[in-house]
Amino acid sequence: MRRTLTRYLPILTWGRRYTTEALSNDLIAAVIVTIMLIPQSLAYALLAGLPPEAGLYASIVPIILYAMFGTSRALAVGPVAVVSLMTAAAIGKIADQGTMGYAMAALTLAGLSGGILLTMGLLRLGFLANFLSHPVVAGFITASGILIATSQLKHILGIKAEGDTLPTMLAGLWDHLGQINLVTLVLGVAATAFLFWVRKGLKPLLKSKGVSPKLADVMTKAGPVAAVFVTTSLVWLLGLDGWGVRIVGAVPQSLPPLTMPDLSPGLIGQLFVPALLISVIGFVESISVAQTLAAKRRQRIDPDQELIGLGMANLGSAFTGGFPVTGGFSRSVVNFDAGAETPAAGAFTAIGLAVAALALTPLIYFLPNSTLAATIIVAVLSLVDFGILKTAWAYSRADFFAVAVTILATLIQGVETGVTAGVLLSIGLHLYKTSRPHVAEVGLVPGTQHFRNIHRHAVLTDPTLLMLRIDESLYFANARFLEDYILNRVVEDCPIRNVVLMCSAINDIDLSAVESLEAINTRLEEMGVRLHLAEVKGPVMDRLVRGNLITHMTGAIFLAQYDAWVKLSAPVPVPVAAQ
Amino acid sequence: MRRTLTRYLPILTWGRRYTTEALSNDLIAAVIVTIMLIPQSLAYALLAGLPPEAGLYASIVPIILYAMFGTSRALAVGPVAVVSLMTAAAIGKIADQGTMGYAMAALTLAGLSGGILLTMGLLRLGFLANFLSHPVVAGFITASGILIATSQLKHILGIKAEGDTLPTMLAGLWDHLGQINLVTLVLGVAATAFLFWVRKGLKPLLKSKGVSPKLADVMTKAGPVAAVFVTTSLVWLLGLDGWGVRIVGAVPQSLPPLTMPDLSPGLIGQLFVPALLISVIGFVESISVAQTLAAKRRQRIDPDQELIGLGMANLGSAFTGGFPVTGGFSRSVVNFDAGAETPAAGAFTAIGLAVAALALTPLIYFLPNSTLAATIIVAVLSLVDFGILKTAWAYSRADFFAVAVTILATLIQGVETGVTAGVLLSIGLHLYKTSRPHVAEVGLVPGTQHFRNIHRHAVLTDPTLLMLRIDESLYFANARFLEDYILNRVVEDCPIRNVVLMCSAINDIDLSAVESLEAINTRLEEMGVRLHLAEVKGPVMDRLVRGNLITHMTGAIFLAQYDAWVKLSAPVPVPVAAQ
Repeated sequence: MRRTLTRYLPILTWGRRYTTEALSNDLIAAVIVTIMLIPQSLAYALLAGLPPEAGLYASIVPIILYAMFGTSRALAVGPVAVVSLMTAAAIGKIADQGTMGYAMAALTLAGLSGGILLTMGLLRLGFLANFLSHPVVAGFITASGILIATSQLKHILGIKAEGDTLPTMLAGLWDHLGQINLVTLVLGVAATAFLFWVRKGLKPLLKSKGVSPKLADVMTKAGPVAAVFVTTSLVWLLGLDGWGVRIVGAVPQSLPPLTMPDLSPGLIGQLFVPALLISVIGFVESISVAQTLAAKRRQRIDPDQELIGLGMANLGSAFTGGFPVTGGFSRSVVNFDAGAETPAAGAFTAIGLAVAALALTPLIYFLPNSTLAATIIVAVLSLVDFGILKTAWAYSRADFFAVAVTILATLIQGVETGVTAGVLLSIGLHLYKTSRPHVAEVGLVPGTQHFRNIHRHAVLTDPTLLMLRIDESLYFANARFLEDYILNRVVEDCPIRNVVLMCSAINDIDLSAVESLEAINTRLEEMGVRLHLAEVKGPVMDRLVRGNLITHMTGAIFLAQYDAWVKLSAPVPVPVAAQ
Repeated sequence: MRRTLTRYLPILTWGRRYTTEALSNDLIAAVIVTIMLIPQSLAYALLAGLPPEAGLYASIVPIILYAMFGTSRALAVGPVAVVSLMTAAAIGKIADQGTMGYAMAALTLAGLSGGILLTMGLLRLGFLANFLSHPVVAGFITASGILIATSQLKHILGIKAEGDTLPTMLAGLWDHLGQINLVTLVLGVAATAFLFWVRKGLKPLLKSKGVSPKLADVMTKAGPVAAVFVTTSLVWLLGLDGWGVRIVGAVPQSLPPLTMPDLSPGLIGQLFVPALLISVIGFVESISVAQTLAAKRRQRIDPDQELIGLGMANLGSAFTGGFPVTGGFSRSVVNFDAGAETPAAGAFTAIGLAVAALALTPLIYFLPNSTLAATIIVAVLSLVDFGILKTAWAYSRADFFAVAVTILATLIQGVETGVTAGVLLSIGLHLYKTSRPHVAEVGLVPGTQHFRNIHRHAVLTDPTLLMLRIDESLYFANARFLEDYILNRVVEDCPIRNVVLMCSAINDIDLSAVESLEAINTRLEEMGVRLHLAEVKGPVMDRLVRGNLITHMTGAIFLAQYDAWVKLSAPVPVPVAAQ
């Protein structure tokens, strides 16, 4: 009982050993993360098409629930860019932005996503996330970064435009180009330029002025808050909202409200696939951050418990006016660098954000949307990295193809098609590769007991003996390939009397492959040729014993390839020169 | 030029060496196959829901085209049971049986199927058929046999009933049970019993009476013709059609007509997926028959050219009033056993059937549908073999699960869902298996240079040295598994200073896996642990050189695991007892 509890509630483990030193470290980290999160939360709510307070709400209860159920000590959970974009894409199909239905669909999406993550965690299905290959994720994130930055241009330009793919977004911007609001544009460009400068130029400048690195770091993190403060003040003092600058406006002063997601079957049916994709993408992003940070302190992450933690966080978000959340990269790194020692740092951040939701929301009445858009653009452009195309090209054409298709499909067809295409394509390419295994015809290296490819080495062979090494596990997708290969090889070459399959590289063999081996055995028998196996691994041998092959086999099973050679080759082998 | 011609037209190869002896053998085989094919062609047209002459037409031009383009010497192409059932299921959704639209959709389906097969052949995509695993095909054929037999019960009972899944068929029969026509039932049951007896009891009886085996064989093959002759005569002489016995009726006396399939985009869109499934199932059935027969004479089958041959046959069927065809098992075996030496036997069969279509159709006016149904039932019950469930269960749970789901889905949801479920499930199970590879912790077998699993053998180990053998190629689906496994193992066990991965069983490694290895390397470095590789295969090493891993690796790459042991283990290794 106690064991089960501590397994599903990691807080019981670290909570009992909590020290005052850890408390002070966690408090400092929480202050820094809170300052960074306030503008970020507002901005990601804007990206998701939701009112700004939703971003704050999505950062409060989810953080606390993750602190109780998650295994990472430093992960900071909340709205993140890619998941916010996916949220907008998913619920944009169901309701118009600004309507009650839209906000309600966001709750449902968070609830579904929480349910899916929790179920995956309890059923230990975390391995499903593995089908998102690294290159596909990298390509997807890069393309999403471009989509997100483009989606924010309308706020910088002060125009209205719709669309959730690159072509529709660009067409929307183009159509409304005549309605650019110059004041908004100036504010937005200035904020963007300032934030880029903070990111690239401020820290070296501060350091050269003799500011301590720690303080320089905090000042850099406070860049977005400064931009929010300056632009909000400008709008307020100069009455720029009268000039057409869109502002955040009235935000309720309240703690996260209790909300009930709409769980009607129709809506669930429409949102299930998007929720699944959001869950998997969110999990993959979160777990890789968590593992990177945990390894630095030699700590352990349990992927299935992480699913439970993220699932609870999303359920919390669904019931407190939020939208889908996950562990974010930048906020977690900041949390870690600021010295957070336990998930309590997350709980303190939640308190900070709750205070902000209660007390500070009147102060952001005049905050221009273009400043939030600038925050998003500067944050997501760091996600864009076309280097993955170069890396993949250098490594293999298959990987390159998967990345390129993922990027193009995401940009042109949207996030859901993009990630689905990437997953299906990488599975398809993998199956294609393993369906045509490498088969080497081998011969004996003179003076040794080693066998090597006859086309690469000077080896001894015997015209009546065909020895093949198969460099792949045998399963249905390559079973027939092997049949074709062996039968065609034997039909072409009449002197062959014995075929030996060298099985040292075969890790597994399924029923289809066993039946193919039986068919090969029978057909070779009809041609007067015997089939032998050599160097069969233990687990594979266990499998073969369960099938019928061994009882019907015309030849023998040799422990070593050399034994087969000694038994089956003609007394005087003919040396063959390497080609 | 000539080479390309002979490659795509195998007839140019065997045609030039055609002898009078081959001619006489081919003629004898053609006569026997023709006798067998007349009732079978009529019956499969009935099964596909088409007029009887369509079965004859589908057996004439397709056979000739296959003889020109196919590579098998003995394969007999025409309507077969499973493909006819799939045809009925596919076009039953589009039009009602007996309408012009239904017959037209059958032409379109054959044309599409021909186009798909031809394209697959020209693009050398024959490997796609490999994704139908043996157990899935076996389960599908068994379930189809049950569906086909059940679908014919209505003809035996003389009632009308619809449905293309087992529950709907049984419900349809149940609903109309009151309308049973007794005369039809008696005729149908008698025909079925007779045909079963011919199949099981006639040959032994004839042999015991001293009839030569060859003649006994021909007489057995003529069983269906005898049943047709007797029941047709009875209906005609006794006027049983007046008693409600449904008969074939007027069949046009003509050679196959020139027909043009309806190629409107809407219809093609509806029929594309069914055509793809029919093509793949038909190809798999055909190629396995062709390969079995070819091996018996040490002949060669080219799968891609087979696709072209079957594609041409189906295109021929589409333009001459037929429906989808493929190489049939029973007719091909009969053709082979009757001594067919070249595809010319097929062409002679086509001539025989053309004569039948021109001259014999008036004779089958009174042929009762129940006799054709009896022919089908007796033929397909030999397809039903639940033994595959037992074989699969004995072999592995995964294979059993794939077969069981295929059978159930086919029976309950129909042929298209069944075969799709089988393919997706077997791919899913394969990916699942390879996503959790077997990882063995190894130690040195004392007095040797061999390394074995520490849990299975008494081996030498060193607490500062973790040696892992990974029994699977590394790719995206298991990359993260490896990360989790190694990091958790090292975190748990503090003395570890070096990790050696023994790569002898790794046949391939993709970009995701390389990036995982880089992540493992970096995270281990942060824990003060070095990562080494040993026994990396040539092609895998070539891949690694293209990535960044090798330049960043904290450890070395050893040729042999023993070299790593000598270099990294403490001077006095501690023996560990086998568990």
